[in-house]
Amino acid sequence: MLIQVIFYVAIAAEAMTAALAAGRRSMDWFGVCVLACVTALGGGTARDVLLGHYPLSWVQNPYLLVLCCAAAFVPIALARYMAALRWPFLLLDAIGLVAFTIIGCNVALDMGQQPIIVVVAGLITGIVGGILRDVLCNDVPLVFSSELYATVAIVSGVLYYFGHISDLPLDIVIIGVIVVGVTLRVLAIVFKLQMPKFVYDKELR
Amino acid sequence: MLIQVIFYVAIAAEAMTAALAAGRRSMDWFGVCVLACVTALGGGTARDVLLGHYPLSWVQNPYLLVLCCAAAFVPIALARYMAALRWPFLLLDAIGLVAFTIIGCNVALDMGQQPIIVVVAGLITGIVGGILRDVLCNDVPLVFSSELYATVAIVSGVLYYFGHISDLPLDIVIIGVIVVGVTLRVLAIVFKLQMPKFVYDKELR
Amino acid sequence: MLIQVIFYVAIAAEAMTAALAAGRRSMDWFGVCVLACVTALGGGTARDVLLGHYPLSWVQNPYLLVLCCAAAFVPIALARYMAALRWPFLLLDAIGLVAFTIIGCNVALDMGQQPIIVVVAGLITGIVGGILRDVLCNDVPLVFSSELYATVAIVSGVLYYFGHISDLPLDIVIIGVIVVGVTLRVLAIVFKLQMPKFVYDKELR
Repeated sequence: MLIQVIFYVAIAAEAMTAALAAGRRSMDWFGVCVLACVTALGGGTARDVLLGHYPLSWVQNPYLLVLCCAAAFVPIALARYMAALRWPFLLLDAIGLVAFTIIGCNVALDMGQQPIIVVVAGLITGIVGGILRDVLCNDVPLVFSSELYATVAIVSGVLYYFGHISDLPLDIVIIGVIVVGVTLRVLAIVFKLQMPKFVYDKELR
Repeated sequence: MLIQVIFYVAIAAEAMTAALAAGRRSMDWFGVCVLACVTALGGGTARDVLLGHYPLSWVQNPYLLVLCCAAAFVPIALARYMAALRWPFLLLDAIGLVAFTIIGCNVALDMGQQPIIVVVAGLITGIVGGILRDVLCNDVPLVFSSELYATVAIVSGVLYYFGHISDLPLDIVIIGVIVVGVTLRVLAIVFKLQMPKFVYDKELR
Repeated sequence: MLIQVIFYVAIAAEAMTAALAAGRRSMDWFGVCVLACVTALGGGTARDVLLGHYPLSWVQNPYLLVLCCAAAFVPIALARYMAALRWPFLLLDAIGLVAFTIIGCNVALDMGQQPIIVVVAGLITGIVGGILRDVLCNDVPLVFSSELYATVAIVSGVLYYFGHISDLPLDIVIIGVIVVGVTLRVLAIVFKLQMPKFVYDKELR
């Protein structure tokens, strides 16, 4: 099935971006693998723990952990060519974001959750892995202040929800959401589109 | 019911303090909303996940998420008056702390947990949201080193537990615990009351 | 039973290392206790939440929380002698790591999980407490870049798994795994054995 293939691509893409983050912190190979697994599988894990949706995907299918570790070694091998691979990576990451969002919405829809929770489940699946990656690297999560990223997940989730309750064939909806979501993300990177910021510099306490 | 009203006030208060923390990190509006939801609902979520108490309150009632996001925009609108609003905010925050603690104790009591776990459930509900807020803002959690805060939650939890097993009417117990807890917190801020600290500056490893 | 005794020793040992970390951040006594509980019980808690294995050990037996808090005060009392106690502490910590790993593998084996998940459950039990300690202290987790630590957990987990499915008596397997694991950890500290590191210093985004 289409979404399954994209799911594996997305996991591998997220694992690779995590490996680069680990390299910037000079982590060892074990740290690289853990960060890859946490980043690629953390969003789905958070969603399933919060919704009480057991067993977790990687507990049922432990080869997902092997896939993450294997993917994490690709940037180690290609480190010297990474600068030239910037755009392929950003594209893979954007596809991964939208694919994770769709999968998260699907899980909530299958559980019969309310519309807001469907979109939130997609959002959590899409962004929590990256938040955990940034916390473990001791950074303020990028997603809270950089170009449109979470917004892409929310827009994709809302579109997918309405596509799902419409009469359209599901594969068409999935492809449509991915095209719209990835395009929005690419435009956000190219034109540095950002949400308005809230800057407050006094101490309350 | 009394505790329900206080619950919504507490959630709104915690969401507002989170928005100020987000502003100090120059987060965008999305980051502000996420930090508000995590801070206001994170304590109850942690408690429910640890006790296996599903579904989570915000999954059952997603409008809590909308309330958090709406409350988060109040400090954005009032940013220039925040200095004058310091005490109202600290008071709301103190009421929120005690209210969250009481609600957390209630959940554990309803599940038939042991007394220590009842108090710990109240403590987790009261302080974990703030801990998550500080971790996401890349700070050492304030609650580990500032004026009495967790202590207020523990005292409130113990009082509520004994009030609950006594013959007193529940509303009287709730009001009594809130008065004692909020007074203790206000005294702690005014007189800078702190727990003794443990300072150790050598590396063991 | 042997493993039960080692379990309590391990919890006390981890709580003590957490107290030292708290002292380096000048936390108050409450912060010391929370950090001790999170470090000593966080690994088992994460494992149980991820596997859906309820109730959690400390919810069922809240005196584990009391044990952690009591153990946390030992380094406060002995702070001036800690330099001389470096090796006893490192040994206790190594025994704790291997004991936690064995206990985590046991839980997964009892649930009938697949071999990879058995080892991962041991690994999570062994290292997640320390990761949470470092995140709460605002550090990049030590385990991602220091001497062999996670590797000791993985080796111990694999050995225990094969010992468990063999015909050997379980106590012999447990003692054997502890001897091998602790020896490996001590050698890693003495000879500064490390995993290869991945150093990458460019920004992708």
